Amino acid sequence: MGVLSRARLLVVAVVCVTILLSFYSVILTHKEVSTAPSQRSPLPSHLPSPGPCNCTKGYAILKDHLPKEKYEELVKRRAKEFQQHKARTSSVLSRLLFAVANSPLQYPIQGYTVRPLTSTLIPGLELHAGKRSSYKVLLSVSKGILTTEIPAEEATVKGAGEAVLIIESSSLGILNHLLAKVSYASTVYHINTGDLASFQFENHKAVFPIAIKQPHLPVLYDMGTNINSQVTITTKTFLRYSELKVLLNSIRHFYSKIKVIIADDSFEPEHITGENIQQYIMPPAQGWFAGRNLAVSQVTTKYFLWVDDDFVFTEKTKIEKLVEVMEANPELDVIGGSVQGNRFYFSLVYEEGEEMDGGCLYRKSHGKFHSLPGYPQCFLASGVVNFFLARTDAAQKVGFDPQLQRTAHSEFFMDGLGSLLVATCDDVVVGHQQKTDKDTDSRYKKFRNPERSVNEFKLELHFFKNHLKCIRYG
Amino acid sequence: MGVLSRARLLVVAVVCVTILLSFYSVILTHKEVSTAPSQRSPLPSHLPSPGPCNCTKGYAILKDHLPKEKYEELVKRRAKEFQQHKARTSSVLSRLLFAVANSPLQYPIQGYTVRPLTSTLIPGLELHAGKRSSYKVLLSVSKGILTTEIPAEEATVKGAGEAVLIIESSSLGILNHLLAKVSYASTVYHINTGDLASFQFENHKAVFPIAIKQPHLPVLYDMGTNINSQVTITTKTFLRYSELKVLLNSIRHFYSKIKVIIADDSFEPEHITGENIQQYIMPPAQGWFAGRNLAVSQVTTKYFLWVDDDFVFTEKTKIEKLVEVMEANPELDVIGGSVQGNRFYFSLVYEEGEEMDGGCLYRKSHGKFHSLPGYPQCFLASGVVNFFLARTDAAQKVGFDPQLQRTAHSEFFMDGLGSLLVATCDDVVVGHQQKTDKDTDSRYKKFRNPERSVNEFKLELHFFKNHLKCIRYG
Repeated sequence: MGVLSRARLLVVAVVCVTILLSFYSVILTHKEVSTAPSQRSPLPSHLPSPGPCNCTKGYAILKDHLPKEKYEELVKRRAKEFQQHKARTSSVLSRLLFAVANSPLQYPIQGYTVRPLTSTLIPGLELHAGKRSSYKVLLSVSKGILTTEIPAEEATVKGAGEAVLIIESSSLGILNHLLAKVSYASTVYHINTGDLASFQFENHKAVFPIAIKQPHLPVLYDMGTNINSQVTITTKTFLRYSELKVLLNSIRHFYSKIKVIIADDSFEPEHITGENIQQYIMPPAQGWFAGRNLAVSQVTTKYFLWVDDDFVFTEKTKIEKLVEVMEANPELDVIGGSVQGNRFYFSLVYEEGEEMDGGCLYRKSHGKFHSLPGYPQCFLASGVVNFFLARTDAAQKVGFDPQLQRTAHSEFFMDGLGSLLVATCDDVVVGHQQKTDKDTDSRYKKFRNPERSVNEFKLELHFFKNHLKCIRYG
Repeated sequence: MGVLSRARLLVVAVVCVTILLSFYSVILTHKEVSTAPSQRSPLPSHLPSPGPCNCTKGYAILKDHLPKEKYEELVKRRAKEFQQHKARTSSVLSRLLFAVANSPLQYPIQGYTVRPLTSTLIPGLELHAGKRSSYKVLLSVSKGILTTEIPAEEATVKGAGEAVLIIESSSLGILNHLLAKVSYASTVYHINTGDLASFQFENHKAVFPIAIKQPHLPVLYDMGTNINSQVTITTKTFLRYSELKVLLNSIRHFYSKIKVIIADDSFEPEHITGENIQQYIMPPAQGWFAGRNLAVSQVTTKYFLWVDDDFVFTEKTKIEKLVEVMEANPELDVIGGSVQGNRFYFSLVYEEGEEMDGGCLYRKSHGKFHSLPGYPQCFLASGVVNFFLARTDAAQKVGFDPQLQRTAHSEFFMDGLGSLLVATCDDVVVGHQQKTDKDTDSRYKKFRNPERSVNEFKLELHFFKNHLKCIRYG
């Protein structure tokens, strides 16, 4: 071979090797796009558990207030009720799920909601894989069945009408067409639950949620044309007819037609007359929260205004102002006002704690969040004073626990924690009648200033009903 | 050049070209893994709207039953209430979202729930991208702020403590370490809402949900140790004291201590005495559902058994059997029995329809779903006869609308559609007292067989309250 030929050969070889090396590095780069699944960090299946909560100084440890001989049975019964509570309040829709990276699968991650027993198309299912001679996907569910179109040629479908559906085709386009026609139908009638669908291709797997819900009929209130069709005043009375009458007269002075509902558990009930005044007679001394729950159960208007029987309306008691804030903030449930300058409010600090022990609750007097956007005179809190406007349906859903017969107040807001959005505004004020011993029935004090046993009862109630370990009243 | 040299040159060239072509095809194959986003089908932002529902033969068109002069105002007020209803019952957590294919992003798609105003780590955020000189990701939220660790060298973080967070690093490992430390905190106190987080890298974008919820205090009932601490019997009476007394005697025959709550709106109330019997006196003729709501508002046990005041207990009236089914099926809310062989039940077929017009509702007599697993004598339905065991908290959350003063029954189950899981079992039977004209107060018939106007009132109520266009009673 001549020198020239060798040189040419060398040049060609070097050029080829260079090009080969550059292609090789390009391929290596692309390969890094798909990290082998084994190199990824393992994904958690649930959010980290908060662990037990701390009952620091100032907390009453509730188990110390339970009758010792009953303690074990109470704990056992409470644990059983708590399991039922969990079954009723959680489903697979609470599970932590992830979209993994570099998966050729496309699928819905939120918003796919179906009616029970009703076949519904699954939106957005697609496969975006590289060229293969054949493509095969698997879909599986637990609480329902899957169907798709009957395929034309070049595709096979196995498991139509069952819980596991396998679609195979040599054409990606045809496979995606069949995926676009996949429907899910749940097989057990349930009003509020979920299923998880598994979507697989080769070594790729995605899990996505299916929400199964029976749609609700709306339940709306007609606001009518004036305050009387929007708000009902509710109160509870016990042995305080003179105070009650002062209250009623003051209401009528400013609101001549507004409906007033009175729950009355006095020993010798006195008939209260008056247009648009509804009095309900309860078994004597049946109780404070029983009476509150009764009064609220009779309301037909969108809102009710809670007042105590010894309040007195003044020119600053403008119900319309509270209605205005409610109407502008549809997600609000309760707005507290001020009782003769006393604007009591509190926040509730609640930690769920561990399942066996229970939670920790701190009622923080004067605790609050931030002001209501657009309403600087109002701010958000967890609970307010006993003078408030409430959305009737929201308050009824929480309820006033009739087991609380004597003193109670915060318990309504505790039972409503997470259900009631509460605010307090300082520009609506109701007066408070002076206490006059000579008018008040002597039995009243005995019931209002309960023996120690009533407070013990409340702590026992918090232990069981609210699944608490300790509670602190700040 | 000699023939041999040319041949060698040719062979080397052919070999190189062959190798080049095969590498090229390999690269092309890998390139297909990442389909350019523009080639994918556009994803929907919401499930397809069902459109208007059909009021076929047999349906009462509700707007025909409204006073014509008030029609426009009613429609306007109803539309306003419906907007508030939507604001209260939906959030970004209803939006349809998808995981797109071949994205280098990993993120949570379900289960990431945070408390309001509380900084919480976002689990599972990772980038799995190919080799680059530098990696830059962007995270943005709407209703909160994002933070992460202060980075060491080789990384920059912009926007910590704000709504848009940008992390940049030349090292993928360092970037992923910072992503693993990203926390979100909502900035507006809300008890039940959501935010959407956007996660971006180059031309890839993912959107995932953040559920913002104030945890609830559980509200549990102590079942105690016997039927008396588990079930309260509730009833409403009006002008039928002889029937009521027969009922009470029959209850006491089989259940000597069980509590009975009576809501009484008779004109001249008669005092009903007896241990564990609580009678509540209402304004005269206040109404049927008002009385039902009252009685149920006073229940302190986990379950209540609804009975009408002219029922009579027999040896087949075994409340314990209904409790057993409830306890075994914690998600059930109401179990109906049989009234002297009459096991009335129905299903409700509801279509939401279009926003302006309203929905279509069909009460299908003898409509039902399937049997209760493990309880072949029971099956699921939407509504049952007026003899049922109910979970007190679930029934109170729905409520008996006090506007329904005269005849009503299905309305409780209509208002409860989607909230109450209802079953009927055939092995628990209550008797029904024979009607005897001579004992019944003559005014009773007048109230029980209402004038046409009462039915018109109910249709008006369905129009507004339940946002319906038409209703059919099958």
